[in-house]
Amino acid sequence: MAEKVDQLTETVQLLSDLLQSGQDSEFIESFESLHDFEMAQVYAELPQQFRDVAWRLLSDDILATVFDNIDVDDVDIVPLLQEMPPQRGARVLDAMYTDNEADLLQKMPARLVATYLSLMSKVSAEEVRQLINYDHQTAGSLMSTEYIAVEGDLRVDEAMHLVKKQALEAELISYVYVLDHQKLIGVISLRDLLTNPDDLSVADITNERIISVKAGDDQEDVAQIVADYNFLSIPVTDDNDRLLGVITVDDIVDVIGEEAIEDYSGLAAVNVSQINDSPWHSAVKRIPWLIALLVLGMATATLISSYDDLVRRAAILAAFISLITGTAGNAGTQALALAVRRIAVGNDDSGWKNFLSEFIAGLIVGIATGVSVFSIVAIWKQNVVLGLAVGIAMTIAIIVANLAGYLIPVLIDKLGFDPAVASGPFITTLSDLTSVLIYFNVAQLFISHFIS
Amino acid sequence: MAEKVDQLTETVQLLSDLLQSGQDSEFIESFESLHDFEMAQVYAELPQQFRDVAWRLLSDDILATVFDNIDVDDVDIVPLLQEMPPQRGARVLDAMYTDNEADLLQKMPARLVATYLSLMSKVSAEEVRQLINYDHQTAGSLMSTEYIAVEGDLRVDEAMHLVKKQALEAELISYVYVLDHQKLIGVISLRDLLTNPDDLSVADITNERIISVKAGDDQEDVAQIVADYNFLSIPVTDDNDRLLGVITVDDIVDVIGEEAIEDYSGLAAVNVSQINDSPWHSAVKRIPWLIALLVLGMATATLISSYDDLVRRAAILAAFISLITGTAGNAGTQALALAVRRIAVGNDDSGWKNFLSEFIAGLIVGIATGVSVFSIVAIWKQNVVLGLAVGIAMTIAIIVANLAGYLIPVLIDKLGFDPAVASGPFITTLSDLTSVLIYFNVAQLFISHFIS
Repeated sequence: MAEKVDQLTETVQLLSDLLQSGQDSEFIESFESLHDFEMAQVYAELPQQFRDVAWRLLSDDILATVFDNIDVDDVDIVPLLQEMPPQRGARVLDAMYTDNEADLLQKMPARLVATYLSLMSKVSAEEVRQLINYDHQTAGSLMSTEYIAVEGDLRVDEAMHLVKKQALEAELISYVYVLDHQKLIGVISLRDLLTNPDDLSVADITNERIISVKAGDDQEDVAQIVADYNFLSIPVTDDNDRLLGVITVDDIVDVIGEEAIEDYSGLAAVNVSQINDSPWHSAVKRIPWLIALLVLGMATATLISSYDDLVRRAAILAAFISLITGTAGNAGTQALALAVRRIAVGNDDSGWKNFLSEFIAGLIVGIATGVSVFSIVAIWKQNVVLGLAVGIAMTIAIIVANLAGYLIPVLIDKLGFDPAVASGPFITTLSDLTSVLIYFNVAQLFISHFIS
Repeated sequence: MAEKVDQLTETVQLLSDLLQSGQDSEFIESFESLHDFEMAQVYAELPQQFRDVAWRLLSDDILATVFDNIDVDDVDIVPLLQEMPPQRGARVLDAMYTDNEADLLQKMPARLVATYLSLMSKVSAEEVRQLINYDHQTAGSLMSTEYIAVEGDLRVDEAMHLVKKQALEAELISYVYVLDHQKLIGVISLRDLLTNPDDLSVADITNERIISVKAGDDQEDVAQIVADYNFLSIPVTDDNDRLLGVITVDDIVDVIGEEAIEDYSGLAAVNVSQINDSPWHSAVKRIPWLIALLVLGMATATLISSYDDLVRRAAILAAFISLITGTAGNAGTQALALAVRRIAVGNDDSGWKNFLSEFIAGLIVGIATGVSVFSIVAIWKQNVVLGLAVGIAMTIAIIVANLAGYLIPVLIDKLGFDPAVASGPFITTLSDLTSVLIYFNVAQLFISHFIS
């Protein structure tokens, strides 16, 4: 990776030098020979005085490619666009793919959006105006309107002619959509167009079993379909089967990455996408979680302090508090992770069966762990009764934590929220409370037998 | 999702009925009209007596598509192939894409692999023999050898002619690789071939800035490149730049999903890909982790019991054990998740800077949380000294847990292992030990001031 960063720095230096020494055409040539992703990286990294020359030298299409490939989550993209006069910025927006254009506009204040929309071509402005209305994380927010479509009954060579005409504009040329008055009625693969005789009717190679999604569908579900079917893109239709746009696999790759980060963040109670924050910002984002959990933890502390007498009589009980809360918390985290995953893959259709299955698993885990801890404590402390108390408490605490780990994400999901927010630390802190309650109550039953 | 399952059951029923009633040609037609992924699902779900008829009716190519699309991690694929005579199975293997073929062969016992290889065509057997030697999770294990390649200086129309000839065999037709004696010297996009004049030399539209990977490269790094560059496939070369194969984006989508599951599993100390296990199997897989952590937890219990006297003198101390261990564990988990993520995106190039940055963040988090807990305890227990003891212990425990959460995955990575194995529960259990040690030592300093 260090190698890659060096390479980027080197390219930026090289291109800056070309501009510095006035070798404009060499700059254009070098810049355009870069891969799209590299162009975007280099453009964002150029010192501003050179960027001010660069956008004057580069074409609208090249600048559109630059802005299409800038990662709006990593780079502050709006100021980059504002370095150009609004008219020029609008032309660049016009030339961008509509999905990326919508992402960029959504980063702007409303006033600025209005300015750019008024300066853009009417068609392009209208298309993007519709896209920015779709909710975040839906199919609509991912789709672009640059696809290849044909209407009517054509021969292969006629269709190929239309494909060639649309190929430069389209985001992906692998599929050709067949429309009947805007209604999506079939899909042809470019491969079939290329490998079939010119005079064949396209109807013979049109697949009418269309797999499509609706604009309001959750992006995670869309990603699952694309992953299952190995598609390069998937059409988005409205309720009347009219083609609204397509989602390409590169956006699906990003979605899968994002969703994974979300789930992972939830389990750790920290947003891991913000790894480049300053220590101050990073801390400020972690503290609210910790304080919230701390308050919940105070409940456990209060509970323990109410067993003050018990602890005074048998100080040895204190030794096992963290063992029981820790182990039950671990078991709860396991159940939580499995439940979140099960929901994510849409495997939650037989709720009762899953519940029973998780309950039995928790029972087995609880008993196995309880027996282990009983053996260890009985031998180590030479005290069978203390071992029994800790072992029984451990078994019950694990069964409860396990059920909580399973039920909480399921409930959150049923309420219509993302179960990934049921963070691991939340479950462990909550299970601390129940574990302590169980532990001291069990200990109370046994105490007369094990204090000396 | 339930809807999807119903649809599958319905299709399986329909196709079974067709075979039952001897409508063979209707069966073939219906089956072939399915999407590739659906064919695979349906084939695996057909009752065996119907599958025995189905493979007799279907062509090698269709069966190859079926086996190409069966998810080898979900379905027991080898017995399905063995339902056919070995000669037929070998013909199906011949017709599959080499990457999937290699995956399938790797699921077989060695004896069976030898049988099939001996029955396959020599060329195909040789290709796949090379692929099955690549290590799991490397670029080599993902690549297929079905790509479109041209040699020599051609005109656009000549290249298109070659593309059409190879299009049916290739896994993806979007890129054409330009070779010079097997050496990869450039890439042409199909889009450029389609949109440029027939008599242009392909040299003019060949991109010579090739982004490729080596067969031994880690699949996670390959996925990152494909995601960054928005590629549909990426070439794999050997040390002499000879083209070995290509990795297509559908495999990258799977890799990103798999890696996410691995990281998530690590954080929860449970393998979440096994969500369909029976309760017994599920429990058996969770128990070893819990017992291992239990043993580590026993060290903490032992440590606490060595402060027996202290607890006897101030039973209130017991109340804050779980608060301090819990909160420090949460902070450690946050640091761990961030560190694992930072390593995953290859952001670990400036080790010292990251260390300092994480240390400062931990310091801020520790102080903020320590001050909060001090205030709460001082007010609640009306005991400023106890508040001070708990607050100071909390601050130090968080700083230590935070550093451990950061350092452990970094060390694991430096040792060449996947930092995702540094599970959250391991960090929290370890930090229980240090937190308790810190807590009782700090308490000891203050004890004479707060016991009544």
